[in-house]
Amino acid sequence: MTSNAENTLTAVYRVRESAAAIAARAKGIALEQSIEMPDEFVSDAFVRDSIVGRVEDIRDLGQGEYDVRIALAVATTGPEPGQFMNMLFGNTSIHEDVRLVEVEIPAAVADGFGGPNHGSAGLRARVGAASRAMTCSALKPQGLRVADLASLAARFAAGGIDFVKDDHGLADQSYSPFSERVRACAIAVAETNAATGGNTRYVPSLSGNLDQLRTQADAALRAGVDTVLIAPMVVGMPSFRSLASELPDLAFMAHPALAGALRIAPPVLLGKLFRLFGADATIFPNHGGRFGYTRETCLDLARAARSPWHGLKGCVPVPAGGMTTDRAPEMLDFYGADTILLIGGNLLAAGDALTAKTAEFVATVKGHG
Amino acid sequence: MTSNAENTLTAVYRVRESAAAIAARAKGIALEQSIEMPDEFVSDAFVRDSIVGRVEDIRDLGQGEYDVRIALAVATTGPEPGQFMNMLFGNTSIHEDVRLVEVEIPAAVADGFGGPNHGSAGLRARVGAASRAMTCSALKPQGLRVADLASLAARFAAGGIDFVKDDHGLADQSYSPFSERVRACAIAVAETNAATGGNTRYVPSLSGNLDQLRTQADAALRAGVDTVLIAPMVVGMPSFRSLASELPDLAFMAHPALAGALRIAPPVLLGKLFRLFGADATIFPNHGGRFGYTRETCLDLARAARSPWHGLKGCVPVPAGGMTTDRAPEMLDFYGADTILLIGGNLLAAGDALTAKTAEFVATVKGHG
Repeated sequence: MTSNAENTLTAVYRVRESAAAIAARAKGIALEQSIEMPDEFVSDAFVRDSIVGRVEDIRDLGQGEYDVRIALAVATTGPEPGQFMNMLFGNTSIHEDVRLVEVEIPAAVADGFGGPNHGSAGLRARVGAASRAMTCSALKPQGLRVADLASLAARFAAGGIDFVKDDHGLADQSYSPFSERVRACAIAVAETNAATGGNTRYVPSLSGNLDQLRTQADAALRAGVDTVLIAPMVVGMPSFRSLASELPDLAFMAHPALAGALRIAPPVLLGKLFRLFGADATIFPNHGGRFGYTRETCLDLARAARSPWHGLKGCVPVPAGGMTTDRAPEMLDFYGADTILLIGGNLLAAGDALTAKTAEFVATVKGHG
Repeated sequence: MTSNAENTLTAVYRVRESAAAIAARAKGIALEQSIEMPDEFVSDAFVRDSIVGRVEDIRDLGQGEYDVRIALAVATTGPEPGQFMNMLFGNTSIHEDVRLVEVEIPAAVADGFGGPNHGSAGLRARVGAASRAMTCSALKPQGLRVADLASLAARFAAGGIDFVKDDHGLADQSYSPFSERVRACAIAVAETNAATGGNTRYVPSLSGNLDQLRTQADAALRAGVDTVLIAPMVVGMPSFRSLASELPDLAFMAHPALAGALRIAPPVLLGKLFRLFGADATIFPNHGGRFGYTRETCLDLARAARSPWHGLKGCVPVPAGGMTTDRAPEMLDFYGADTILLIGGNLLAAGDALTAKTAEFVATVKGHG
């Protein structure tokens, strides 16, 4: 491929391979992710010059691991989020000894997708947090009736939480249908805000196909909601991006469900790619919780979400996954203030003292640093 | 959870864990995939009795691996394909030491999703293959102009191939826009069929969000196409199922792009789940090709796709991935006649002899057994 910065995506694949075979293996990945056939049978000059992927670098990481850097043609991707993912990792995802560990894009691709609608500043404006870290909790367990979820939402709001989101398991189930739930919870939170002078945001979880997502987003907007939860890998990247681009007033908190642990490095998938397609905030499992991310992965992910990137708005990292309020100061030291701390079960475990424990958590975060 | 066969999904997770910790670990997965919080804080009787996941069995596989069988409530899933995947493997996909290796569903869930529109019999009727195995090839490389792709399609059709599909990398790129491509290739194949008396089907690849998929499917139908290619993990399961259910005249060949290698066992994802959501045929990498599936995985996958399952139509296995025509007899012995053999690059490598080599491949398959 004859490339320049504007027409080229760069993907870095971490490959387990022998020293003798890595050059051929790298070439194989470049072909697999572009023309999917041996290049000796390509007679078309345009394909050969502009479409076939090109190995740019092979870095020996030791212990049989290599980082293979491959240039792919932007023209192959659309730009459409599904096809973008397909060209980055479609067939190669099937190789168990290859991981996608980095993605670089030209500015035009970033502009084409557009990234977050609101980013950190927009989320801060929603909850009146000029520079401090923000707080979040979750409505659960699923199975509760709408009135119980609304009452929980009101109690979190009374404690001054910034965001109270649906558990990502809350969809459109018979026991708490979406439209009824979004209305009841939004009203409960708005009434509590009116009484306390607070700015708590109720963040409903959207699910389903694009039609259902649009209907749910519309119901949420009509209920006064301005921030929603979505799991991009559950609804599909194309639906996620379509919704974010059609509804510029909404902010999107992305959930990592179905995103897997290993095959696309979490900083790339949950940090860069979710941000590229429109995540204003990205939830991920903090180190030392129920999941296995390391401190380094968490820090890389936060950096990928927030760092300057072709003028895209920043995406706020939301460490979560079995966090407890006593870890709040340590987490704030680790992540800094441009962070949303999400603590669910540990607050819910307070039972009747939920509002008091929430207020204590909120005070810790507001008073930190 | 108080369960009976009708209200319960069963998921089997293969977990690396110590003997001392496996019981607690299994309980943890059951909670993670249902209420996502410790059950000691659940006061609601309905949630406790009908929603919380229940460990049904823990089987020691030796060498630190266990199969954990968990019952989940059907009521939590909608039924909606995204939420179904979310409840099966949403958060647990983030644990690198857990794989989803089996899924069992009650008949009502199978009915609710509906499975393939046409299945094996419908695909056979399209190409006039009463009982023999079927053949397939691919239009590639991407980057070719529409006229070149149409000419390739005509040459495959002249060789008597049953299905000629777009490479899964063909989307709606500027160099071969979908609507132009589908018209030109469908006409080229129809004209060849008219001349030869053949029944070749052109199978275009659909991509994009649900709106784009509908527009493309409509253009395909108007061009006389009755079978399409789709990558469920690229477009998202909700879009895939919506399209299959809205367009009962179309048959769907599923492509494994982005489906990964390890975290959901291929027989479950590419066999059962793709079939459940509407795949009439499922493409997967045959053993001994460019990808790492074992013979056993391939056989399990074919069995999962074809076996009787709550009255759903069978899904035809399509082994592929670097196959060569000389492997056709061995593959037919291995998979049996209810199979589509997909050979792309190896036929394209014949260059000017493409039609002759295709005819030879077709004759081998027709004459087998």
